[in-house]
Amino acid sequence: MPLTYTGCFITLEGPEGAGKTTQLKQLSKQLDILGINHIVTRDPGGTPLGRQIRRILLNPENPVNPMTELLLYQADRAQHVSEIIMPALKEGQLVLCDRYTDSTMAYQGYARGIDFKLIEELNQIATGGLKPEMTILFDLESSEGLARLHPGGHDRLEREALEFHLKVREGYHQLVKKEPERWKVIDASKPMTIVQTELRKLMIDKLAGKFDIEGLLD
Amino acid sequence: MPLTYTGCFITLEGPEGAGKTTQLKQLSKQLDILGINHIVTRDPGGTPLGRQIRRILLNPENPVNPMTELLLYQADRAQHVSEIIMPALKEGQLVLCDRYTDSTMAYQGYARGIDFKLIEELNQIATGGLKPEMTILFDLESSEGLARLHPGGHDRLEREALEFHLKVREGYHQLVKKEPERWKVIDASKPMTIVQTELRKLMIDKLAGKFDIEGLLD
Repeated sequence: MPLTYTGCFITLEGPEGAGKTTQLKQLSKQLDILGINHIVTRDPGGTPLGRQIRRILLNPENPVNPMTELLLYQADRAQHVSEIIMPALKEGQLVLCDRYTDSTMAYQGYARGIDFKLIEELNQIATGGLKPEMTILFDLESSEGLARLHPGGHDRLEREALEFHLKVREGYHQLVKKEPERWKVIDASKPMTIVQTELRKLMIDKLAGKFDIEGLLD
Repeated sequence: MPLTYTGCFITLEGPEGAGKTTQLKQLSKQLDILGINHIVTRDPGGTPLGRQIRRILLNPENPVNPMTELLLYQADRAQHVSEIIMPALKEGQLVLCDRYTDSTMAYQGYARGIDFKLIEELNQIATGGLKPEMTILFDLESSEGLARLHPGGHDRLEREALEFHLKVREGYHQLVKKEPERWKVIDASKPMTIVQTELRKLMIDKLAGKFDIEGLLD
């Protein structure tokens, strides 16, 4: 797959509960008003085939082993890149993707302990080497992310969940350290309007000159 | 996944129409009579999850890209190895598998042109390095295999199919050359009873001492 394109590929990362999806929706509305050609998509489940894979993974009758799970997510990703992301980038669109390869590193790698090299190999195979030009981390204290998802709960499972999410967060921070030029970090504990403003500022910095982004902060 | 086991893992390869499935059924009946603890399974589709993956691949509404297809087959294989093959081998069973990693090399690699190194990497990842102790190639002239599958047909598609199957056969021959100690070749154009006898002789050579295989030729 040749990686030449005229669009721009930006991904959002962070824990569940950090508000990525909501913030993307708001941003997309404003991009529509400005007439900026873009798509908002998500990994996994960005294609019909991906949603069928998701059904297999969520079927409680399937005891899916960790390697199978990883390969299914990568199959979903390969289809997503070739069917949705690359065609949009080649058409010159801005592609905003909710999660991508970094989620696999943070969740399956840092938190579940699957070998990093193996995940990197599979990420490379599935994406044909397509990397985001900018990745925005919605950073949030793990306890706060969990509290947003499960208000009130503090049982054994919650504590296990907290440990898991601490590892995910630490994983993201390691990824930021490794490639500081690609990553931007937003403090997702701030009020939603402030987070949206910071997100738009990052977009302007990245897209100025490439897209007619004036008025994004209006 | 630790690869220590007391059973024996044997795979069958070759084109469609070569009679692998029929021959395996006959062999399995005789193994039952002798009380030899064994399973017959197949790749792909050896698990419930694998059959769900197969449905995705066969759904005409899904335009599956080649890399996605390869990753889905490998996801199926990872589940098959961990759910069926390895547990049976650890119980000391003889595992007879209709197709395995060599099919991916012959069909996706030699015939479709996907990079060998990539397929080998994915085979390794999906199987955790589990290799068959013996692989039996049911070798057949490509035109004969096709004639068995589509008696009478010689249109453009048939000619394309012939070219494809010539590549598959050549691929298998290359694989045999690379690892002659693992491969045994049976001339599948011979009468079925003779093929069955040759298959049983190969089994006796391989299993003697490990399983009570006396009487397999009766």
